[in-house]
Order: sequence, then C-alpha cells, then structure tokens
Amino acid sequence: MPHIELPAGLPGIRGPMAFSPETARPLNDLVNVLLRTNAQRPESGLTEGERELIATYVSSRNDCFFCQTIHGAVASHHLGDDDWSLVKSVKSDPEQANISSKLKALLVIAGSVQQGGKYVTPEQIEVARAEGATDHDIHDTVLIAAAFCMYNRYVDGLATWAPENPDLYRYRAVKVAEYGYTHEDHYMPPKLR
Amino acid sequence: MPHIELPAGLPGIRGPMAFSPETARPLNDLVNVLLRTNAQRPESGLTEGERELIATYVSSRNDCFFCQTIHGAVASHHLGDDDWSLVKSVKSDPEQANISSKLKALLVIAGSVQQGGKYVTPEQIEVARAEGATDHDIHDTVLIAAAFCMYNRYVDGLATWAPENPDLYRYRAVKVAEYGYTHEDHYMPPKLR
Repeated sequence: MPHIELPAGLPGIRGPMAFSPETARPLNDLVNVLLRTNAQRPESGLTEGERELIATYVSSRNDCFFCQTIHGAVASHHLGDDDWSLVKSVKSDPEQANISSKLKALLVIAGSVQQGGKYVTPEQIEVARAEGATDHDIHDTVLIAAAFCMYNRYVDGLATWAPENPDLYRYRAVKVAEYGYTHEDHYMPPKLR
Repeated sequence: MPHIELPAGLPGIRGPMAFSPETARPLNDLVNVLLRTNAQRPESGLTEGERELIATYVSSRNDCFFCQTIHGAVASHHLGDDDWSLVKSVKSDPEQANISSKLKALLVIAGSVQQGGKYVTPEQIEVARAEGATDHDIHDTVLIAAAFCMYNRYVDGLATWAPENPDLYRYRAVKVAEYGYTHEDHYMPPKLR
C-alpha cells in the first residue's frame, strides 16, 4: 500500500505524478530530453535504445521493479529485443552482453554513479574515451544514472503499486517510443485506465 | 579536475548546466517547484527554509560539498541563521536541532530515501503523521530527498569544481531566495562571473 493516498489504479511513478502535476511536468521534461534523441541534441552519440538500457541498468541496481520493467520494455522495443533477452543480460552481466564496448564502459560509469557521484574514477572515464565516448556521452550517462537514482527513489520511497503483467509494459513502451513520456493517461490500455 | 571539459569558472552544478542547457531547464524547473513555496503549491505545509534544510541534509549525507553549502546558505538566509549554526546542527544531529518535531520526523524519511526508496518504513510515515505531516508534506519530502540524490550525483559524478569561500555562497543565496534557481549567470558576484 502506498505511503500516501494516491489516485487509484495508476502504476508506478504515474500515481505520484497525478498527485503532484506541478512536479510531474519537469520530471517528464527531463526524462524526455535525456532518453529521447531529438533535434535538441544533435551532438548525441547514444541511441534511444542505449539511453534506455542505461536507465534500466541503474533502476535494476536500485531494485526498482516498475522503472526497470518499463524502461527495459522501451529499450527492448527500440532494439528489436522481443523476448527481452538482451535487456536481461545487460541487467545481470553487462560485460558479457551483446552491446558495444563503448556502452559497456559507460555502464561501468553509470554503476559508479548509482553508488554515489564520487565513485566515478578518472580511469573509468579514460576507458570510456578509449572506446569512443565523447564528453556529451559521458555527461548524459552520468545524468541519466543520477536521474534514475531520483526516479527510483520517488517510486519506491512512496511505496507505489506496480502491475506484474509484462504485456502492460510492452503496450505502454510502444506508445512511449512514439509519443514520449507524459503523466497524462491517454495511452494506457483502455481496460487499465 | 572535472571529468569532461566544462565552461571554466562556474561552480558546482552550474558548469554542467552551462554545458547542457537543454537538461538544465527541467533541472531548474524541478528545484524551483520543489524548494520555493509559490502560488502553484497552496497546499504546502513546509516553508522554504524547511525545504532547503531537507535538501541540505540529504546533500550532506551524500557528501556533496557544493550542494550542502549552497542549499545550507539558502536555508540559513530564509531562517535568519546568520552564523549557520542551525544548519550545522541539522546536518550533524537533526534529532537535537532546534527545529519542529514534524521536520525532525520528515528528515528521518529523507534520510531513508537517501539510502534507497525501500528504506522508508510505514512506521516512519506514521511518526511524521502524528507530528502533523500531511500527504503533501510527505510527498514533497520524498521527492526533495530523491531529487538531491540526483543533483548530488550529477555534481560529483562529473567531478565539478566548488569554491570554498563561504561569502560566495552567502551572496548567491540572497539572489536565489529572491529570484529562484537558474543556470544563467546574471547574479553571480561580478568578479566571479
């Protein structure tokens, strides 16, 4: 049961976002800029799938079921990972996953940020650069990882409810990939609205 | 030395914010809504000074020098704590600090969020309610604490520079209290611009 009275039936972060729309706006603005490659970020060297994998990995390390499942579903959608096997391997053992060496090096940095900002080392940065990471890639990796340390704590710190049915996350992932993140309700499955 | 090439001379979070203005916007929007009591949040039961104390406390627990110093300075400004003794006592031993029992109970929740969302217990929520905390107070406490787990990691995960001179933080605190948080430069001390 959530720690505060939230609008019923809204999964994960969407309950608190409906409860507090004035904070939901910048929270959604931030995740849309960070996770969706768009005209605002022409310098981006990370695809949407890769950005979602970083978010998923950090959420998994923070043990946040809702965030790792929805962002894992969005990553899988972008990457054609229909059975979620790639996402699962990134969560359990990124070093062995079928992803680029650059992304592996960035996930090491993301894992350090998850523990705390000061865990990031110059050596980790050097390895990422040697694999082709730019300043913008490193910046975005640190901020995505930091941001999910917030979103995960917001979701679990209020003890929000999350459905277990993976089809719900698959359904929403398609909509998110097309239209972006929002606290509004218009693309939930009708029976789940 | 910062891990990436940031505009020179900007302290703390303002370096990465100048590097990435498109993410700075929602980051500033969020902190302005969360820390500044305004017409958007008529239900707020927390003063600006109390909100800044929560931010300062979490930043201190995350060992983020820049964030705990600037938000401590803003809190002190709001609370008339000219020698920063109240802020220091909140950071070192909130249970003994000269603050309300409600705020003490909310700082316990903030401390749990700093460790991870799942550390918040129903008992901690019950104690806060018994001291008069509303759902909005609890919501905002959890989100402020979660958000500073992001800001702190952003600042330290990129190894940003922070000045030690407390007068710089005092100067900026007055401006922040009046005009709000921004990534723009117009109210830095002229010699530090």
